[in-house]
Amino acid sequence: MGKMSGLPSRAAHSVLHFLLFLASFAAAAQASSRSSNQGSAVVRNISTIPESNYGRGGLSHITIAGAVSHGMKEVEVWLQTFSPGSRTPIHRHSCEEVFVVLKGKGTLLLGSSSLKYPGQPEEFSIYSNSTFTVPVNDPHQVWNSDEYEDLQMLVIISRPPVKVFIYDDWNMPHTAAKLKFPYYWDEECFSQPKDEL
Amino acid sequence: MGKMSGLPSRAAHSVLHFLLFLASFAAAAQASSRSSNQGSAVVRNISTIPESNYGRGGLSHITIAGAVSHGMKEVEVWLQTFSPGSRTPIHRHSCEEVFVVLKGKGTLLLGSSSLKYPGQPEEFSIYSNSTFTVPVNDPHQVWNSDEYEDLQMLVIISRPPVKVFIYDDWNMPHTAAKLKFPYYWDEECFSQPKDEL
Repeated sequence: MGKMSGLPSRAAHSVLHFLLFLASFAAAAQASSRSSNQGSAVVRNISTIPESNYGRGGLSHITIAGAVSHGMKEVEVWLQTFSPGSRTPIHRHSCEEVFVVLKGKGTLLLGSSSLKYPGQPEEFSIYSNSTFTVPVNDPHQVWNSDEYEDLQMLVIISRPPVKVFIYDDWNMPHTAAKLKFPYYWDEECFSQPKDEL
Repeated sequence: MGKMSGLPSRAAHSVLHFLLFLASFAAAAQASSRSSNQGSAVVRNISTIPESNYGRGGLSHITIAGAVSHGMKEVEVWLQTFSPGSRTPIHRHSCEEVFVVLKGKGTLLLGSSSLKYPGQPEEFSIYSNSTFTVPVNDPHQVWNSDEYEDLQMLVIISRPPVKVFIYDDWNMPHTAAKLKFPYYWDEECFSQPKDEL
C-alpha cells in the first residue's frame, strides 16, 4: 500500500481492478492446475500433490509424475502407502514395474503367466530398503501383511497411463480378467473441465 | 561337525571335498552375480547392491533396477547421493528423467535445447520431498549446493541404458557435446566375464 498511496484515485481504482483481474486469473489457473497444469512447474513439493485412496480402503496414492497429470510419456512414478492388512487387487499390466520399499514390510504374491490362469501364487517377503520388479504381464498382488505398520513404496511403471487387468481370484483365466482403463487415479483427470460459457 | 563325526574317514574326506567344491561354486556365482545375475532374485536388499562413485568425487551411485544389471528394458532406477558441493556434469540424454529427492537440498540448472548451445541456465531449488522432471534432451546439471548435508535422490530414466552427451560448459554447442556410452555404471557389466578354459 505504501507505494500506491501517492497515486490519483482514478489511477488507483484502475490498478485495483487490474490486481483483482490478476488475482482471479491466478485462482482460476490454480483450480485448473490439479489435473492438467501440474506439469508446468519444474520442481514440485510432493506434499502438495493431490492424495486420495481412490475408493480402495487403506490406500494412499500420490502420482508424483504421471502421464495424465504431468504429461509423462514413457515413465510414471507413484508414492503409495498401504495400511496394515490392505492390498492391491490381483492384477496384471503390460508394462515394467519397479517397487522401492521406503517403510514397513509385506508380501508380494506372484502368479503365473504361462498357465491359463495365475494359479497358486509364489510368496515373497518385501521390506524397508528392498526393491522388486514385476515381470511384464505377470499377475500379482502387493499386500501389507503386517499387523501394525504402514507399507510405503515408490512405484515406477513404463508405458503410462497404466492399463490394468483385474482378477477376481487366482484361478480366474487370464482371458477373463477385466480391463480397468483409465485406472482410478487417471480417471478424474481424463474428464476435461466443462466449458462454462 | 557333530553330525559328520560318525562317518568313516574316507567318506568324511569325500564330503569335505564336496563341501569345498560347493563353497567355491557359491563364491564364483557370487562374484559373477555383480553384473549379470542380479536380475534373478525377485526381491533384492538395496543395501547389498554394489555401490560406487564410478570415478566422480562425492558421488554414491547404486543401480536399483537396471538394463545391464537386471535386464530392464523400459525403465531404470538409481539411488544417488551427492556430498556437499558435488554435481553431475552438464549433460543431456534422449529419455525422460524423474527425480525424487529423499534427503538434503540443492540446485537444478536447466539450459536450453532450442538455442544452438545450453546458454545461461535457469536455476531451481530442489529439496527433500520434492520431485522434478528433466524434459527429454534438455541440457542440465544437478548440484548439491548445500555446504553441509548430503543430497540423496531416486532417479528414474526411460529407454535404458542411458546414452549421455556431456558439455564442457554452458556455451558449448549441442553438436559438440561428447557421447559417453556405455555410461560409467554400465561399463563394467558390458564386459562379459572371460571364458576361463
